Amino acid sequence: MDTKDFIDFGKAVIDFIANYTETLREKNVLPNVEPRYLFNLLPEKAPQKPESWQEVLKDVERYIIPGMTHWNSPQFHAFYPTANSYPAIIGDIMANGLGCVGLSWISSPACTELEMIMMNWLGKLLGLPKQFLSSNEGFGGGVIQGSASEVTLICLIASREQTTLRTKRLHPELGEAIIKTKLVAYASDQSNSSVERGALLASVPIRLLPTDDKCALRGETLLKAVKEDLKKGLIPCCVIANLGTTGTCAFDNLVELGAICEEYNMWLHIDAAYAGAAFACPEYRYLMSGIEYADSFNVNAHKWLLVNFDCSLLWLKDSRKLVEACSVDRIYLKHDKQGLIPDYRNWQIPLGRRFRSLKVWFVLRTYGVEGIQQYIRHSIRLAEMFENYVKSDSRFELVTERVLSLVCFRMKGDNQLTQELINRLTARRKIYIIAATYREKLIVRFVIGSRLTREEDVMFAWDEITSQATEILRTVTPPLEKGSDESLKTQLWQNQKV
Amino acid sequence: MDTKDFIDFGKAVIDFIANYTETLREKNVLPNVEPRYLFNLLPEKAPQKPESWQEVLKDVERYIIPGMTHWNSPQFHAFYPTANSYPAIIGDIMANGLGCVGLSWISSPACTELEMIMMNWLGKLLGLPKQFLSSNEGFGGGVIQGSASEVTLICLIASREQTTLRTKRLHPELGEAIIKTKLVAYASDQSNSSVERGALLASVPIRLLPTDDKCALRGETLLKAVKEDLKKGLIPCCVIANLGTTGTCAFDNLVELGAICEEYNMWLHIDAAYAGAAFACPEYRYLMSGIEYADSFNVNAHKWLLVNFDCSLLWLKDSRKLVEACSVDRIYLKHDKQGLIPDYRNWQIPLGRRFRSLKVWFVLRTYGVEGIQQYIRHSIRLAEMFENYVKSDSRFELVTERVLSLVCFRMKGDNQLTQELINRLTARRKIYIIAATYREKLIVRFVIGSRLTREEDVMFAWDEITSQATEILRTVTPPLEKGSDESLKTQLWQNQKV
Repeated sequence: MDTKDFIDFGKAVIDFIANYTETLREKNVLPNVEPRYLFNLLPEKAPQKPESWQEVLKDVERYIIPGMTHWNSPQFHAFYPTANSYPAIIGDIMANGLGCVGLSWISSPACTELEMIMMNWLGKLLGLPKQFLSSNEGFGGGVIQGSASEVTLICLIASREQTTLRTKRLHPELGEAIIKTKLVAYASDQSNSSVERGALLASVPIRLLPTDDKCALRGETLLKAVKEDLKKGLIPCCVIANLGTTGTCAFDNLVELGAICEEYNMWLHIDAAYAGAAFACPEYRYLMSGIEYADSFNVNAHKWLLVNFDCSLLWLKDSRKLVEACSVDRIYLKHDKQGLIPDYRNWQIPLGRRFRSLKVWFVLRTYGVEGIQQYIRHSIRLAEMFENYVKSDSRFELVTERVLSLVCFRMKGDNQLTQELINRLTARRKIYIIAATYREKLIVRFVIGSRLTREEDVMFAWDEITSQATEILRTVTPPLEKGSDESLKTQLWQNQKV
Repeated sequence: MDTKDFIDFGKAVIDFIANYTETLREKNVLPNVEPRYLFNLLPEKAPQKPESWQEVLKDVERYIIPGMTHWNSPQFHAFYPTANSYPAIIGDIMANGLGCVGLSWISSPACTELEMIMMNWLGKLLGLPKQFLSSNEGFGGGVIQGSASEVTLICLIASREQTTLRTKRLHPELGEAIIKTKLVAYASDQSNSSVERGALLASVPIRLLPTDDKCALRGETLLKAVKEDLKKGLIPCCVIANLGTTGTCAFDNLVELGAICEEYNMWLHIDAAYAGAAFACPEYRYLMSGIEYADSFNVNAHKWLLVNFDCSLLWLKDSRKLVEACSVDRIYLKHDKQGLIPDYRNWQIPLGRRFRSLKVWFVLRTYGVEGIQQYIRHSIRLAEMFENYVKSDSRFELVTERVLSLVCFRMKGDNQLTQELINRLTARRKIYIIAATYREKLIVRFVIGSRLTREEDVMFAWDEITSQATEILRTVTPPLEKGSDESLKTQLWQNQKV
């Protein structure tokens, strides 16, 4: 493809994306396809000769768009959002066009330095304590990673290595391998799947501890577990605390957990993947009380901070702990400024890395701090509006307290009603919501996150939900006066079979 | 930013990248900046109010471009290339614009399915055995990952878990934690740093075994190590074989290694990060003899296959082994088609994932198989041209055999001469090459990879190298008739001090 074709194709795709975004509201959020639909539409191998870009673009419209779940649709309320903004898309065109690999400072100084500066800008935006920022004093600093999963994994590994070395110094008679068999980490049973998975990958057993009635992990629970494990001869090494759980957006009690981590010398990692973005607004910073205890702090800018995936932000109070855990050098990686400035390859799992700070820069400058705050507050205001709809309808109940832009609700009565609601909404494909559980109760998670969502979309979603609830109750309730949960369930199943 | 601004800004950046690419030849490949240069140029925090995109674009030109190491410059001969092509850049605009997260099939069917199909297209392009492809029979298939480092890590982890479970079945009296302390993996001492690092991260001790005079790991060496370790009560679990090492592009003997892996039930992972691209041309497929023994096979499309970073291709003969190693499920991740088609989140470390197969599709269609082959053969032909220059000049020597587009050479005599050559070339910033070692010898790695490199650029590089060599030898040799290496070195240092 020559430069002229690039310009034509590139501009056609810019127009395509502009049009896609502008017309998202008109599309069903979920696609109407069955597994392997695309195998019937595309050839079995690559073409021998080049094809024109016009053909490729037509095929995106023909074959890809119909198979999309539209994450940026104003009717997408399922998972926490994946950020999508115009300046971030353009920042990434720039990153790809320049196409450097920032494995060390020399491999592209601008790539390393803009990232250091952007992590400081973002740290200040969120009101982080200054020990987490990069400066001439101390060893704090931030780095952009691919995902919260990678961040959790590498922090678990760093804590594993650090605790092993410390234990070995105290007990030189023990081998490293044996020490590692005694390590244990902690998180709440509300943690994201990536926490449990990270522990499996790092080969560090993790205890998923019970939470209080607000789904928060409390100090008392952690302390009890730590003491039990110490008694068994185990070695506590790491606590992963949630600020904003995936299920219900619950907040662990950092002040209580932090003090225990300090006393027992455990790494405290904070997973604020979604909720951390809210700290851009000072009125929500009370939710991170105790942050000063943390060793590492993670927010996904690619969730609720308008920077497209991937852009997972990790700040460290002492970056040496991460770097020392698993550094490997080779002659071909060396350069003569080494040690003066971070070589980010030592701060992450991969060796290579993209120029991801460009999209952060583009977003922060064209939105400004005020633009970001406006977006966050707008999402929360819409969630509040939805919450009020739920409160106003006696067929529904709120399950946990809404703190940010997630509303957890259910149909009163047996879980089967809520399950049926979810099934119907999914089958109708007009809005996308997903299930979670609170205690034994099945709940619907309703998230506001797309920057396109407006009041009319929240009304639309509520209409869709209530109309389906009405249908469900019509087919279930008439024969029963005030049926027990059990009879409702039986009734419902019978209706379904018919 | 509204849609009109997006269109204007986006198109301006398309023009910017077109112009950047067209004028790359005129720029020095290395920048002229000192650590922390950018801290003096940018504000300390994000702006409060939005700024115009025009200002942002000007600042890229003013502050970022001068701090770039230009990886796509025709004079970049240092690391293996980072792929950069026009259709890949545009494919990524589309991916960002659609902005889905392909964590499960339902979360965007097109994202999962196009990836499955593209991994089949690529597998056929490279001539892989069909057990590695996705089909209705068997459990083979491919997945796009972020980097070879992640791929190595996850394959090591899968082998760790698989071997642990197998051993536990044979010896139910042993605990999993104890079994894990006995595992051992193998690779050659020529492996990329990411292999040693992956083993550290996975907490699996790895033995880096010596290689033959072609830098290849041989069966005999592996067999000896395995037998020694078995005698010590250790449990061999994984071999990571190189096809194209980082230092000198050496090829381990897969036929020999594979048979041993089969006999001793070890996972065989193949790291063909750079060289694997050459298998697009049938005349180089002899280099992967023995591939049929592999459990997993990795090529970075983002190196030498024209697909921008990140796009690391992993094929598995039995994907269940990876999926079963570390799967974690949650109610919010479930969907009703589960099990019918891959949920790729179980094939990788992160939970989230971008629509990376779009850029693969755009590249394969607009280049066609023939376009890809042409690019690979062109790179190799230019490397051959450079090799002939080296051969023709008695001041230089080739160190290892050139197989693909990497030429390893040095100045005859003491290492200090070659070091001085590298220092001078780096300081002059006109071409970028890096050092490696072969036995005790310091060598220069000269790689062809940028799709912009032409014959005139190879001539330019050779002129630059020989003119510096002439300078070095002029300042060193006159006082000496035929100095020993030692006297040369002393002399050189004295000259440098003056």
